[in-house]
Amino acid sequence: MHPLKKNTDEKGKICQLPKMIYLLTDFGFEGQYYVAQLRGVIQKLCLEDCKIEDITHAVVPFSVIQAEYFLMTTFPYLRSPCIVIVVVDPGVGSSRDIVAIKDKDGNYFIGPNNGIFGRFPSKSKIIDVRIIQNQKILTTSVSATFQGRDIMAPAAAALANGLSIEELGPPSKPLQVNKLPDVKIGAKFVTGGIYSIDAFGNIITNIPATLFKEINLEEGKVIHVQVGYIQEDFTCGVTFSDVEKGGQVVYVGSAQFLELGVNRGSAAMVLQAKIGVPIRLLWE
Amino acid sequence: MHPLKKNTDEKGKICQLPKMIYLLTDFGFEGQYYVAQLRGVIQKLCLEDCKIEDITHAVVPFSVIQAEYFLMTTFPYLRSPCIVIVVVDPGVGSSRDIVAIKDKDGNYFIGPNNGIFGRFPSKSKIIDVRIIQNQKILTTSVSATFQGRDIMAPAAAALANGLSIEELGPPSKPLQVNKLPDVKIGAKFVTGGIYSIDAFGNIITNIPATLFKEINLEEGKVIHVQVGYIQEDFTCGVTFSDVEKGGQVVYVGSAQFLELGVNRGSAAMVLQAKIGVPIRLLWE
Amino acid sequence: MHPLKKNTDEKGKICQLPKMIYLLTDFGFEGQYYVAQLRGVIQKLCLEDCKIEDITHAVVPFSVIQAEYFLMTTFPYLRSPCIVIVVVDPGVGSSRDIVAIKDKDGNYFIGPNNGIFGRFPSKSKIIDVRIIQNQKILTTSVSATFQGRDIMAPAAAALANGLSIEELGPPSKPLQVNKLPDVKIGAKFVTGGIYSIDAFGNIITNIPATLFKEINLEEGKVIHVQVGYIQEDFTCGVTFSDVEKGGQVVYVGSAQFLELGVNRGSAAMVLQAKIGVPIRLLWE
Repeated sequence: MHPLKKNTDEKGKICQLPKMIYLLTDFGFEGQYYVAQLRGVIQKLCLEDCKIEDITHAVVPFSVIQAEYFLMTTFPYLRSPCIVIVVVDPGVGSSRDIVAIKDKDGNYFIGPNNGIFGRFPSKSKIIDVRIIQNQKILTTSVSATFQGRDIMAPAAAALANGLSIEELGPPSKPLQVNKLPDVKIGAKFVTGGIYSIDAFGNIITNIPATLFKEINLEEGKVIHVQVGYIQEDFTCGVTFSDVEKGGQVVYVGSAQFLELGVNRGSAAMVLQAKIGVPIRLLWE
Repeated sequence: MHPLKKNTDEKGKICQLPKMIYLLTDFGFEGQYYVAQLRGVIQKLCLEDCKIEDITHAVVPFSVIQAEYFLMTTFPYLRSPCIVIVVVDPGVGSSRDIVAIKDKDGNYFIGPNNGIFGRFPSKSKIIDVRIIQNQKILTTSVSATFQGRDIMAPAAAALANGLSIEELGPPSKPLQVNKLPDVKIGAKFVTGGIYSIDAFGNIITNIPATLFKEINLEEGKVIHVQVGYIQEDFTCGVTFSDVEKGGQVVYVGSAQFLELGVNRGSAAMVLQAKIGVPIRLLWE
Repeated sequence: MHPLKKNTDEKGKICQLPKMIYLLTDFGFEGQYYVAQLRGVIQKLCLEDCKIEDITHAVVPFSVIQAEYFLMTTFPYLRSPCIVIVVVDPGVGSSRDIVAIKDKDGNYFIGPNNGIFGRFPSKSKIIDVRIIQNQKILTTSVSATFQGRDIMAPAAAALANGLSIEELGPPSKPLQVNKLPDVKIGAKFVTGGIYSIDAFGNIITNIPATLFKEINLEEGKVIHVQVGYIQEDFTCGVTFSDVEKGGQVVYVGSAQFLELGVNRGSAAMVLQAKIGVPIRLLWE
């Protein structure tokens, strides 16, 4: 349990901070009223006041891979223990289950078993995974097209109210893993996948920053970067202010992954990059 | 009163959940600082802590019809009783009044009398409608261009603080109804209006889903859809995954209205549709 | 101290409203997960529950001038005393300091010393400015690219927890002032700068509305407006509904500055205007 979860007030009385519920969706700004419906259902059903926060609703539509990136890199900064709901689902209406995961730290993760939870939370942390099927806790009229509101939100409220995860439904099949390419390191290269692309066209890879030291990519070294049939040169370990306009740099991002950027330009355009595709770094 | 509004804590003491105030505007993401001003004024004036939530700020600018759609379809999922403020107003500076509505369930609705409240809340629920005129509760310097902040937000805070609606001002003229075409059902057709268009170009009509059964639009049946001079064929009651790329489908949306969509395409583009215009479905 | 900050409940017991922390950034909608990280760090570190609100995250990327506009015009409507964090920083990684400012009303302002705080809060209100350097309160692994999360958020939480500003670090150099042109009034002209441009292309200047009276710009008077090499005529003191489509008007905006707009058009396009550039109004 998070050390800050329970506090004492001036008179030594224990104050309970509100329960935390976090939302991560691909509804976009235009889908804000769907977020309102999720929040409303949770607030109607929670017996005590809870605090509902947004991780982001700006996931590229249906991108389970980018959703994993946002979840994995943001979660360490959230107040824990908490309940996270993820509504990013290219397979709405298909046969994948809606599941709830419990980890060792008392956190719950709710969403479709479609690859979003394949890498995070890590397998060593997970203690139970259940299919959400208990009709008693679901909103009565279950629409085929909004399972977030009708299944996930009521399940989150039930867990916040103290229901044990076993009561949600039977044990789940193994969690799906999405198709983001794994990182592989060779003598003079490393390959991985594109985890995300930000609003400026910077490319975030899944290659950990620790590699910079490990493979001796010292500052100023020029490496080749390949995405599909395109190859471009990028300079290591410098910042945008160190290069001229159009300068191409590879650097450690705030999430401690290698990122590629172009000063006042777009690395994603230069490399014709898309989320989820393989990326290859080579050097001499 | 909502059954969850009052709760008891572990010691049986009654806990008061915070008052709910909901915002619905067309400020857009770029107008977020206007939302901050609304929230700030409410938080300054509320004597007790209140909870301010966003229904959406993504209403198409000035679209009273889309605002009605968002309000009508989202409200059933919100924690009630609550106060809703709607700031969507093509007639800023014109002669329509700013009104407050009270319904039988203890909810209040605040906004311009410009058609936003003509269908929801329903007439049978409304027990009082007042023009907000009481100078004592308004922010002193009333700007001609931001009545949301200077009239509506202070009125909402006053109601949250326990003021009775009669003290806001005199009874209002009848509530305006906006120009969304009504639904009419014939032997082999139904006409209605376009309530909203989502980020993917799906068209949401005001034709209730119950019609599917009533008029025997069974799954797989092809119907003709007319908007203006354009007519296109759509297949009934199937999902996107049932048709190929470009396939045109009519289905029941999460708000229980008929919706039109194109698999990986835009129904709004295909039909050159705009919010508020008439739409006609015909079949043999 | 704000008169509403302390309240008494039904039994006369003093209720403490939650501490207010406001965020102002240029993260955009796509950067919402960065906002989640700021909020999460604050919520982890605050000993009591606090209320975190968004001023806006829609600042034009790196525009210190527009950020100043949003801060200056929104702050009067916020619940005070509060802590404001501003993360808008074209010079990330450069040598400017991260500072904390305390004003006479008990408010704190945290952000880079890069021109954002040069005009607001006003010098007469400021009682202390410190460089945030105390390693004990900072998040341990300080990333070069996200000082908002790793320096500013922990400093805000520390102040909310009661730390005195002197403990954050040594006194700061004078606050930088950004390059927005100052207002100058002549016999038949006034010059100033462009503070902001809204989603409709309306131009917000830094010329105060009081000028309308002072220089006798009566309703209906036509004035010349110059931006760079472009000059256009605008009509004073009327609203959009008073002119035909394409009509160009100068009016008092909701922030009490002169604004320029085009009915169903964009003043920013007509004048090829950008935030921060000089603007000149002339009349006969």
